[in-house]
Amino acid sequence: MTIPFEKIKAEFKRVLLSLNFSDSKADECAQIFAENSRDGVHTHGLNRFPTFVQYVKDGYVVPDAEPTKEGGFGSLEQWNGNLGPGMLNARFCMDRAIGLATESGIGCVAIKNTNHWMRGGTYGWQAADAGMIGLCFTNTIANMPPWGGIDPRLGNNPLIIAVPRKNGHVVLDMAISQYSIGKLNFYKSKGEQLPLPGGYDTDGKLSTDPTAILESGRVLPVGFWKGSGLSLVLDLLATVLSQGRPTAAITNGGPESGVSQVFIAIKPTGAQTESLVEEIIAYSKSSRPEKEGAAIYYPGENTLRTREKSLMEGVWVDEKIWEKVKNL
Amino acid sequence: MTIPFEKIKAEFKRVLLSLNFSDSKADECAQIFAENSRDGVHTHGLNRFPTFVQYVKDGYVVPDAEPTKEGGFGSLEQWNGNLGPGMLNARFCMDRAIGLATESGIGCVAIKNTNHWMRGGTYGWQAADAGMIGLCFTNTIANMPPWGGIDPRLGNNPLIIAVPRKNGHVVLDMAISQYSIGKLNFYKSKGEQLPLPGGYDTDGKLSTDPTAILESGRVLPVGFWKGSGLSLVLDLLATVLSQGRPTAAITNGGPESGVSQVFIAIKPTGAQTESLVEEIIAYSKSSRPEKEGAAIYYPGENTLRTREKSLMEGVWVDEKIWEKVKNL
Repeated sequence: MTIPFEKIKAEFKRVLLSLNFSDSKADECAQIFAENSRDGVHTHGLNRFPTFVQYVKDGYVVPDAEPTKEGGFGSLEQWNGNLGPGMLNARFCMDRAIGLATESGIGCVAIKNTNHWMRGGTYGWQAADAGMIGLCFTNTIANMPPWGGIDPRLGNNPLIIAVPRKNGHVVLDMAISQYSIGKLNFYKSKGEQLPLPGGYDTDGKLSTDPTAILESGRVLPVGFWKGSGLSLVLDLLATVLSQGRPTAAITNGGPESGVSQVFIAIKPTGAQTESLVEEIIAYSKSSRPEKEGAAIYYPGENTLRTREKSLMEGVWVDEKIWEKVKNL
Repeated sequence: MTIPFEKIKAEFKRVLLSLNFSDSKADECAQIFAENSRDGVHTHGLNRFPTFVQYVKDGYVVPDAEPTKEGGFGSLEQWNGNLGPGMLNARFCMDRAIGLATESGIGCVAIKNTNHWMRGGTYGWQAADAGMIGLCFTNTIANMPPWGGIDPRLGNNPLIIAVPRKNGHVVLDMAISQYSIGKLNFYKSKGEQLPLPGGYDTDGKLSTDPTAILESGRVLPVGFWKGSGLSLVLDLLATVLSQGRPTAAITNGGPESGVSQVFIAIKPTGAQTESLVEEIIAYSKSSRPEKEGAAIYYPGENTLRTREKSLMEGVWVDEKIWEKVKNL
């Protein structure tokens, strides 16, 4: 079923106000959750909302915590999230990075002791809406083995890179695992195979079977050894720059809380920017499609289509989860 | 066969001096080529040297060109490489980025009209040797189709992320294609299959057959659609920040020359840095290995071993290419 955007947002806000969120914080959090559903990222919109509420109730997310500055130097700042809502801390940090980039061309803000930011793309769109190139990443609980290993020791550490563009920003929002655990469960529940190998089965063979991969726990990093290395260095950067907790400590600490994140904004300068962006997108679209009649999309292009559709026709919701949220 | 490091370097320098390189430029270029072989990156060391020489002779690489500043704002600078040797321009830019980061915590230098930097890792090691986090990437000629397409429209745009560490820096140096064209040719020449799927055959099936992949031209991006998006945004960033040529223009221009690159240095600050880096590496190594007796390596760890071995026992060289270089 579909629900108007404002109705979903109002429902989220109602629940958050009952949980000791201030009016403005409840409004901002509700807006972000509703936007994630609106853009088709259901896993980090409505579907995730009940878990977020539980985290608040369990004390892992502290509704009224504000980020505090711990250090920094020049265009580089270190903040403590004080376990506040991850989305609010993340928006705050990208806003700081944008401010630093406005002053000095580039700004970098690292934050420790923050919480899950839900959809990372949110902060890419935020930077691009401000006319900035945005780059951010987070560490997570260990959910992926390093290359050559079988026990999960790496997070899937989502990486976001956004480039502003008049006719729709380019926003790459990718976890370093080929498929998220949520996606694997989604295919499993439908009894379907993955379109492409997503991990190893318990015999150590590449597999498209979500059940076998979930059983082995051997989720595939993007590009095999390459994604394994990329995940490790993103954890190093987030942890070192924020002086916060690495995937190791987050994993050993129980439920995923107190993560480390980095936000970088860069101010594009130069008269050719707009035409160069169009040239790159047009060139990629000039590749003959694999399937006749299909098209090549840039990252974020489908998000924009889903957004437009949601605003015209209402936001698609999973009816069961919607009922659950109404009863929170 | 193996050759002492200094002997290889001297041979490179001799050839470069005959090509109108100044003594200092010949020395620096020779050093970088020799170091790439020393570190086991033969494709961008000795094996690439004859091609580099040909590019100089053909006028694509201008030996005495110096980079010139074109613009910038705060900790963000734009340079023109003036088609000088890519390695020298890249070392210069990372050095500038380190200088900016020393002043302001973070620095970003973009360069247009530069040339192939050979091994990107060179500039990651450079940043880490200076105690800086280094991040750099380059665009390239189109050699990979975008996701859903069959004609190459993306570069494999190598991405380097380096983190300084007392007992050996962590240096990730990855192209966005699963295997380079050089690697595919290497397996083809040995008549071997790739260890993991590296592209599609002409029937559009995932394949480990290097001959079939080279025939189709459908080299696989890391993580399928994810690497396709990552390659596109790296081209956008390199092109927009340098106001240089995108993969589209480089490809249409003939031989790969006049590429765009970005160099970012970040100054790590905080008393916990060293212990956090060790914690992350130790945790990843605590994963049980897939094969008994094997170990988990961090990016750059094997480079360091190869380097030590090369310095002790001499640098391995392909005898035929070594003879060729001696006759240049």
